[in-house]
Amino acid sequence: MFDFTVKAKNNRARTGVFATPHGDLLTPVFAPVGTQATVKTLTPAQVEDVGASLVLANTYHLYLRPGDELVRDLGGLHRFMQWPRPMLTDSGGFQVFSLAQTRKIDDDGVTFKSHIDGSTHRFTPEKSIAIQENLGADIIMAFDECSDPNDHKYSRIAMDRTHRWAERSLKAQTRRDQALFGIIQGGVQADLRTASAKFISSLDTPGIAIGGLSVGETKDEMHAMLDVTIPHLPENKPRYLMGVGTPEDLINGVARGIDIFDCVLPTRLARHHSAFAPEGRLNLMNAAFTRDERPIDETCDCYTCKTFTRAYLRHLIVAKELLAGTLISIHNLRALIRLMEQIRVYIADGSFESRVPELLSQWHGNAERNKMVNG
Amino acid sequence: MFDFTVKAKNNRARTGVFATPHGDLLTPVFAPVGTQATVKTLTPAQVEDVGASLVLANTYHLYLRPGDELVRDLGGLHRFMQWPRPMLTDSGGFQVFSLAQTRKIDDDGVTFKSHIDGSTHRFTPEKSIAIQENLGADIIMAFDECSDPNDHKYSRIAMDRTHRWAERSLKAQTRRDQALFGIIQGGVQADLRTASAKFISSLDTPGIAIGGLSVGETKDEMHAMLDVTIPHLPENKPRYLMGVGTPEDLINGVARGIDIFDCVLPTRLARHHSAFAPEGRLNLMNAAFTRDERPIDETCDCYTCKTFTRAYLRHLIVAKELLAGTLISIHNLRALIRLMEQIRVYIADGSFESRVPELLSQWHGNAERNKMVNG
Repeated sequence: MFDFTVKAKNNRARTGVFATPHGDLLTPVFAPVGTQATVKTLTPAQVEDVGASLVLANTYHLYLRPGDELVRDLGGLHRFMQWPRPMLTDSGGFQVFSLAQTRKIDDDGVTFKSHIDGSTHRFTPEKSIAIQENLGADIIMAFDECSDPNDHKYSRIAMDRTHRWAERSLKAQTRRDQALFGIIQGGVQADLRTASAKFISSLDTPGIAIGGLSVGETKDEMHAMLDVTIPHLPENKPRYLMGVGTPEDLINGVARGIDIFDCVLPTRLARHHSAFAPEGRLNLMNAAFTRDERPIDETCDCYTCKTFTRAYLRHLIVAKELLAGTLISIHNLRALIRLMEQIRVYIADGSFESRVPELLSQWHGNAERNKMVNG
Repeated sequence: MFDFTVKAKNNRARTGVFATPHGDLLTPVFAPVGTQATVKTLTPAQVEDVGASLVLANTYHLYLRPGDELVRDLGGLHRFMQWPRPMLTDSGGFQVFSLAQTRKIDDDGVTFKSHIDGSTHRFTPEKSIAIQENLGADIIMAFDECSDPNDHKYSRIAMDRTHRWAERSLKAQTRRDQALFGIIQGGVQADLRTASAKFISSLDTPGIAIGGLSVGETKDEMHAMLDVTIPHLPENKPRYLMGVGTPEDLINGVARGIDIFDCVLPTRLARHHSAFAPEGRLNLMNAAFTRDERPIDETCDCYTCKTFTRAYLRHLIVAKELLAGTLISIHNLRALIRLMEQIRVYIADGSFESRVPELLSQWHGNAERNKMVNG
């Protein structure tokens, strides 16, 4: 269980297979986000149809609602939401730290107020693991502290705490059918990232996550942090770059050796009428699309592109019909998943590295950072 | 084209086949409502999956947005919304009369203000037919005036106008690939309904609609009006009872000789968390369902019932996830369409009439009138 086999490499980019209780993941892989045990506006059948193999759910949200014990009693997340393939849960750390005004961090854990009803709760590494064991995803995360990348002093404190919490998370784990990943922190400081990469790599975990990026730093800073981190990571463990997922981020991340990505971007953009297209990101509410009989992307094989015109999608948006969000979500997810399928082929045939400039220029108009937290 | 063949009868109930340019309709049939060229929250693939064979769209809404000429230029409604099976449009009459404060009726037509932007528009029989020809549904409606059932004097005026408008609608028709139905009005007065049934039956149309019911009268009044109307209608034309669609209404309507129904009820209830179930209408937000591992209806063959628990649906509702509306819409539509499938079998095997009490008691907890206008 949780063997990771690298099948091919192109410089630092790799394609491989990660074995989980709910099937093999072909990497590199992009995971749609199902924050509250649903990829927003899509049925699990539609999520399967876009080719998703891994879905992420959020520990913080599911702990509050419907409650992790309820999910456990109803057979775990896979059964509850009827997602038959691999799942991943985060630790809840990032979400509670995002509640800037209403949380208090100490060396033992974090006390915070629910965004739903203001009630007080406490997460510790032990509690986070207990919740994630109740939820029952295939891949779970050590409890970590994400720091403000511009506060260097705090980044060291947060990193040290993250390391101690990773050890406690590992000790707290009781289920052996879940892959617990440690998380590398360290803000945008090369020395901290290096230290954290070495420490997290020294732990006996089946995979390694990189946290605290795509949280306010520049693209160049993110790339620099990946460049100093990844050389210290073992080859035989999958590497998960948390919460990152513009098309350009995926291409740049894979080129630097990342295997797993997740992001709310494709579904969130869709609900705001924005679609990934060859000519750049389209705001489909624009009047320019009123009579546009083309699909979003003529080269795309998704249900939306095979079926509907931009004119119809614009009509749904203008008429405030919820189907618009569903149809654009299908396309945006398929666009990123198809990009990853192409990238896997290119790594396998050895052409990926030489194709990076072409891929980046192809996706150029779709760049934009996503700082939003919840799917 | 537009031949209607009655295959079997049980007293006044009939089952038959109505031939349209987009395929044969097996009657009796229930049509989901796709007000703005979408059955709310569902893809056309999902609408096909629930077994729908006929979808209704609203002339008033599509005239305003995106505009009937745009729909025509993009290939008509079927192509625009990608619904491959038969479609029906109403005349716009009911919707503009519902704009009680902002419309003015005269013998020639109706002037009204758009609910979207307050702009002024005018429908006449000729305009309604021109719009419906642009939209291109298989079945279209004569322009009619729906009266307040409690205003008997006005009911006669509205009926007379409806008859003159039916003649003008017929004269205005230029397309021969659309079945234009005349509409019977007459409020809740037996003499008016009788006169209207005779007049509308005398016109050369491939089908007949009954309007102005389910608009505020009692169930007994509705049944009485059907009982005085239907004996005057020809056997060889399909009969469409407009806007009616609780399960009990369907059973009672078929027993009185109705062939076609439409209603926003199943999809509207779904968006308000209410599901048709054997024990009655369920409000799935209720805390009683928090840990309920059963599907909405154990006997139902829809995707929702085959896949999800009530507990999961309740979670989606409480977490304000839009997927709840989609999944309950799938079930509610399937419930009514399955009821119609059963009824067709019972009429064919001669058991329908004797089963009416059993069917009514089976659906008893799901009774409730629907006075809402838009899907």
